[in-house]
Amino acid sequence: MSTAVSPLAPTDVPEMPVIPGVKLATAAAGIRYKGRTDVLLAVMDKGTAVAGVFTQSKCPSAPVEWCRAKLGRGQARALVVNSGNANAFTGKTGRQATALTASIAAKAMACSPNEVFLASTGVIGEPLDATKFNGVLGTLAQTAAPDDWMNAAKAIMTTDTFPKVATATAKLGKTTVTINGMAKGAGMIAPDMATMLAFVFTDAPIAAGALQSLLKSGVEDTFNAVTIDGDTSTSDTLLAFATGVAAANGAPRISRASDPRLKGFIKAFHAVLADLAEQVARDGEGARKLVEIIVDGATTKKSARKIAMSVANSPLVKTAIAGEDANWGRVVMAVGKAGEPANRDRLSIWFGGIRVAHKGARDGAYDEAEVSAAMKKPEITLKVALGMGRGRDRVLTCDLTKEYVAINGDYRS
Amino acid sequence: MSTAVSPLAPTDVPEMPVIPGVKLATAAAGIRYKGRTDVLLAVMDKGTAVAGVFTQSKCPSAPVEWCRAKLGRGQARALVVNSGNANAFTGKTGRQATALTASIAAKAMACSPNEVFLASTGVIGEPLDATKFNGVLGTLAQTAAPDDWMNAAKAIMTTDTFPKVATATAKLGKTTVTINGMAKGAGMIAPDMATMLAFVFTDAPIAAGALQSLLKSGVEDTFNAVTIDGDTSTSDTLLAFATGVAAANGAPRISRASDPRLKGFIKAFHAVLADLAEQVARDGEGARKLVEIIVDGATTKKSARKIAMSVANSPLVKTAIAGEDANWGRVVMAVGKAGEPANRDRLSIWFGGIRVAHKGARDGAYDEAEVSAAMKKPEITLKVALGMGRGRDRVLTCDLTKEYVAINGDYRS
Repeated sequence: MSTAVSPLAPTDVPEMPVIPGVKLATAAAGIRYKGRTDVLLAVMDKGTAVAGVFTQSKCPSAPVEWCRAKLGRGQARALVVNSGNANAFTGKTGRQATALTASIAAKAMACSPNEVFLASTGVIGEPLDATKFNGVLGTLAQTAAPDDWMNAAKAIMTTDTFPKVATATAKLGKTTVTINGMAKGAGMIAPDMATMLAFVFTDAPIAAGALQSLLKSGVEDTFNAVTIDGDTSTSDTLLAFATGVAAANGAPRISRASDPRLKGFIKAFHAVLADLAEQVARDGEGARKLVEIIVDGATTKKSARKIAMSVANSPLVKTAIAGEDANWGRVVMAVGKAGEPANRDRLSIWFGGIRVAHKGARDGAYDEAEVSAAMKKPEITLKVALGMGRGRDRVLTCDLTKEYVAINGDYRS
Repeated sequence: MSTAVSPLAPTDVPEMPVIPGVKLATAAAGIRYKGRTDVLLAVMDKGTAVAGVFTQSKCPSAPVEWCRAKLGRGQARALVVNSGNANAFTGKTGRQATALTASIAAKAMACSPNEVFLASTGVIGEPLDATKFNGVLGTLAQTAAPDDWMNAAKAIMTTDTFPKVATATAKLGKTTVTINGMAKGAGMIAPDMATMLAFVFTDAPIAAGALQSLLKSGVEDTFNAVTIDGDTSTSDTLLAFATGVAAANGAPRISRASDPRLKGFIKAFHAVLADLAEQVARDGEGARKLVEIIVDGATTKKSARKIAMSVANSPLVKTAIAGEDANWGRVVMAVGKAGEPANRDRLSIWFGGIRVAHKGARDGAYDEAEVSAAMKKPEITLKVALGMGRGRDRVLTCDLTKEYVAINGDYRS
């Protein structure tokens, strides 16, 4: 188990501002880890709108089912996140654990359990002992503070090598609103941990339905365009909370996602999602290279996405990049297997901006030394031009290293 | 680059009988390798029927396109296979190389180029110098012998660690007919090599159309049910040749795949295909475990296949098996992400015949020591019961080891 921070970790970590209407607190409840925090409580003002998107897994975790069931009301007062145990594949006891956690939090907050949102990350298949939250959540509700963002991001980590936060501001009407986000990614040193959790908070007064629309469209080219190994967790959760406190400062209340006054907000919201998603890719297990895959000239954007994902998830492409080898033959293979319209004789491929294949054959003009130098960089862009149409897409991934196998091939302890 | 034979190699290698109407010869033409054979010529009697199935890649190699174009005639006199160069993604020069190779072979055999079938395996994107076949094929046509099967299987290897052959006999009418096969698998030490080639020969008098039907249905649960890493080659080729010489000994001429007299032949034919396919899985890059994945209780066989493939291609499942860890949480994850009908609370999972999860939760009854012992074996069966219906399927794969990453992450030399 390596504890070294990923070499791809961002060097610029932002100062996280407060979000009016949001307070945070963390504790060490001893869910699984020792000597570190493993519970986060986020306390939101009355009137906070909530939206969420979740794993597409047919076997979702109990907290995912809980959140889905409560989302229709659109109101949130508390978010409880624990690390160390995913409360997934735990049957009836899993459902009982979510209900108990929500009821403990509701008591601490004097709100309804229906206003409590939950997320868990950690081992699959072990019962989560929710009685550990007794007392803990009551204390956290009393001590929650508006400026504890970095500690919050740390409490939700499992085997992430660095905490992931992002922030942005936007004008809503004439009022400046703030968006803060945090995420945990795909660090999976202990087995069964494969959860992407992200939480975004804003003081903008945006109704739940509109927030849901923004989240759904925002996730498409950010979190949904990241892949580490093509394996989808049972617990992936992205929740957005809008406290609406900025309305007191004159921000207009927004009820529809199509409201033109949202223009600047949407841009900032997407920037926060994109920043967090990129940090997830930067912290992929064993990652030594951040890889951006751009596909253009596909028949549609959807087709470009499918081809980009086929390249991003190909073990042969990923191991070649780990070996700093501009192996375009494997890229051809991955394009070919995607099953989308492609014509070998129109295909061109670039590594790090250098064209290595053109119109169905090796590009005779490229300089091997120049390509080698490009492949040694920690960030590599791989571009595929199909010459079929105007469809374009971009996904982020990382390389596949021996460290990935070591991390995930260790015995369960 | 490891040259050790896979620990999963079969210990029983059959004596290969002759196939009346087929002669074989090999040579070292210096395509890429030194000090080993790299060309195979199979010479078939007049009247030999041919059938083939190929990669589903949208970017197939030039020899795949050649074979597809010639298959309609249903007649074959020669098969030329070279290792060291896949003649894939080589543009117009690739098409010229196939035409030149076929014309050299046709001259040597005094047949039409349309009766010559081609397969190439090796590096992608490098032009294949077909003039190297000049002279070589003429000599091979003259020296071809009926009993050179093991040498033939060796000549088509790239980085396979052992030659792959299989044989079976069947009664057709009252006559015994023989089926021989050879394959090369997914050894990919030098980059760009990702080709599965297999060739099956019989003396049974089966018309091309019927042979094509047999091949198409035979491949479904054999070669198409094997995955090493989910990456599909541009060059995968499986050709079957039926010389019909057994007709002289009284075997009935078969023109339809539905002919009831084919019953025994189909069984033997499938056995040869299944044997070769399993050997391909046993020689997956870096493989230390042969993994059989059985899915039952799916809504349909097709759904079972999709779920089995999702499990078989999951890097997290494959690394867990490499680590001898009965990590059923990752199996749940892989079932969940397949997108097929599944219900967490009906799911049961077995490793090596031991039930570790039952009805949506850990099976409290299993003995950890017993499971650990099962996981140490070189052959592991992983069974998933969905409890949704009667769909059942089985696929073969291998584990994902650091050796896989080392093999495929090496620099192109």
